[in-house]
Amino acid sequence: MIKTLGYAAPSATNPLAPFSFERRDPGPKDVQIEILYCGVCHSDIHTARNEWKSTVYPVVPGHEIVGRATKVGSEVKKFKEGDLVGVGCLVDSCRKCPSCQASEEQYCDNEKIFTYNSPDKHLPGKQTYGGYSNHIVVDQDFVLKVSEKLDLKGVGPLLCAGITTFSPLHHWKVGKGQKVGIVGLGGLGHMGVKLAHAMGAHVVLFTTSPSKVADAKRLGADEVVISKNEGEMKAHLNSFNFILNTLSVPHNLDAYISLLKRDGTMVLVGVPEHPHPSPNIGNLIFGRRSIAGSLIGGIKETQEMLDFCAERNIVSDVEVIPIQKINEAYERILKSDVKYRFVIDMASLKA
Amino acid sequence: MIKTLGYAAPSATNPLAPFSFERRDPGPKDVQIEILYCGVCHSDIHTARNEWKSTVYPVVPGHEIVGRATKVGSEVKKFKEGDLVGVGCLVDSCRKCPSCQASEEQYCDNEKIFTYNSPDKHLPGKQTYGGYSNHIVVDQDFVLKVSEKLDLKGVGPLLCAGITTFSPLHHWKVGKGQKVGIVGLGGLGHMGVKLAHAMGAHVVLFTTSPSKVADAKRLGADEVVISKNEGEMKAHLNSFNFILNTLSVPHNLDAYISLLKRDGTMVLVGVPEHPHPSPNIGNLIFGRRSIAGSLIGGIKETQEMLDFCAERNIVSDVEVIPIQKINEAYERILKSDVKYRFVIDMASLKA
Repeated sequence: MIKTLGYAAPSATNPLAPFSFERRDPGPKDVQIEILYCGVCHSDIHTARNEWKSTVYPVVPGHEIVGRATKVGSEVKKFKEGDLVGVGCLVDSCRKCPSCQASEEQYCDNEKIFTYNSPDKHLPGKQTYGGYSNHIVVDQDFVLKVSEKLDLKGVGPLLCAGITTFSPLHHWKVGKGQKVGIVGLGGLGHMGVKLAHAMGAHVVLFTTSPSKVADAKRLGADEVVISKNEGEMKAHLNSFNFILNTLSVPHNLDAYISLLKRDGTMVLVGVPEHPHPSPNIGNLIFGRRSIAGSLIGGIKETQEMLDFCAERNIVSDVEVIPIQKINEAYERILKSDVKYRFVIDMASLKA
Repeated sequence: MIKTLGYAAPSATNPLAPFSFERRDPGPKDVQIEILYCGVCHSDIHTARNEWKSTVYPVVPGHEIVGRATKVGSEVKKFKEGDLVGVGCLVDSCRKCPSCQASEEQYCDNEKIFTYNSPDKHLPGKQTYGGYSNHIVVDQDFVLKVSEKLDLKGVGPLLCAGITTFSPLHHWKVGKGQKVGIVGLGGLGHMGVKLAHAMGAHVVLFTTSPSKVADAKRLGADEVVISKNEGEMKAHLNSFNFILNTLSVPHNLDAYISLLKRDGTMVLVGVPEHPHPSPNIGNLIFGRRSIAGSLIGGIKETQEMLDFCAERNIVSDVEVIPIQKINEAYERILKSDVKYRFVIDMASLKA
């Protein structure tokens, strides 16, 4: 067993604190990884605080992991010692169901094993522990290759915020000649803007904050619409091929659906705590429009996203923190006070 | 001008009664049609009673029209005197917008001219009058060819109930190897069952009425699920490629969405008077599922549907009535007391 140091939430109400635990020794198909950086996702907070009512304590969050392979099992072909690698939201799945067979493990019908707070198949009775730690051991099929070209500090968030926005843009074939809306400019939205722009679309960012206009344009938005301004919204009626809505607060979906062209789709990636106002079905019928949902992405698609980003030098805009500041970072995330993702420099663990 | 006899609603609260009016003489591109049968759609009732708050009185309803061409204009190439023809919900559109150019006139951005209760371009100041009448004059581009092979009495409802269900089944490429749900067994639902079955899908009909099981199977359903029975519903979780929901009463959409496989779509064709309970977005996200809407169909697709039905001998199940029984028929429709569509025998107008 590998002695590991991390930060864990001991309960829903206590702050995260240093926590020592053990990882399994790498098996023949495993990759042992020294974690260099780990992004901080809002899901980490939901889980640390048991807001989804499913947390087993102590919990070590973190699913935006980048690091270096320090040991590989005898059957590992895809990676060698010293490779830069990443781990996202999933570390295993059933591998047999139609979704797994289609490389869409995120929709596995049977047993998705999340990077943290899932039952650990290898250590019965234990939960998986995530990336707020100095090492992790993961089956090679759930490890991603990371390019040496990219600024590593900004790569971690690609593994959740990046793939969550890339996957729907990719699945719905966003590209040149299309007008694409991104709703919200947070951790997800800022990646949505960068990726949709890189795919060649005309990108319109929707935000309630006039203070975000300049930054949205810097990130790649061709236009920015202040969504509270009815006149600005009306000017875009019936004009979008696709809208990616990253908000998870309840809001009026109709205001965006009516901006879609015939056959346009709005994809939601956030689950609101309370339901959105019920959408107007006439708005769907009179334009054959769709509302859909999308969940992270499969491993194959995540690799495609990382390769896409490496070719175009795309990473997340991040603020790097030492792990000792994690509790403060959580408070700042809740106030949307981060541009656009916190990333923990895991070297700080040794401090 | 052509003297025409029909039945009109003189106001929202008075029953339909005989009404004499004039049609335009056919222009070079027009087809004059002697109406033989006209189906009775729930929209006729909504409009006659001003339930959509847009009715101009008197209104002559009827948009499921079949008859014989009695005169064709000098530039009409597609039809000749004596041809069996049909007219559905639309008699004109702008013809220039992207939807019209794509043969999707039902989504015309500018000016859809409905068969009744739309401003009549040819008779300024008048409204269009529908198929509860002995004659109609329609531009050839909005006239459909009807096969002599089919039982004409059941053809009228194909032009609204038929195309409203055919279009989404066709657009979302329903076919062999797919499991398809049809929700509701009324005028629309019974056509949905027949068409989805004819397209080769495994068809499951959802109904609240155990009394409809045998009839649904006769119409082509492979299975019938009583939707109030939770156990029966659960047995179908994650198993449908596509669900066509014909209900227009507010109901729990989640119960059906959770029956869709990954990437499945539920299409709604009915606008509820009050909103459905707001759908669970997590249900969409965790299976990349979609909710969409669909409106009748374009003229080209309506012709494809009529040809499809002619090849397979598909018509609507109808109860033929004389026009003098129209007010009684409306009451019976409101009680769902018809299998599955009333059709007016227009010969009765002469009586």
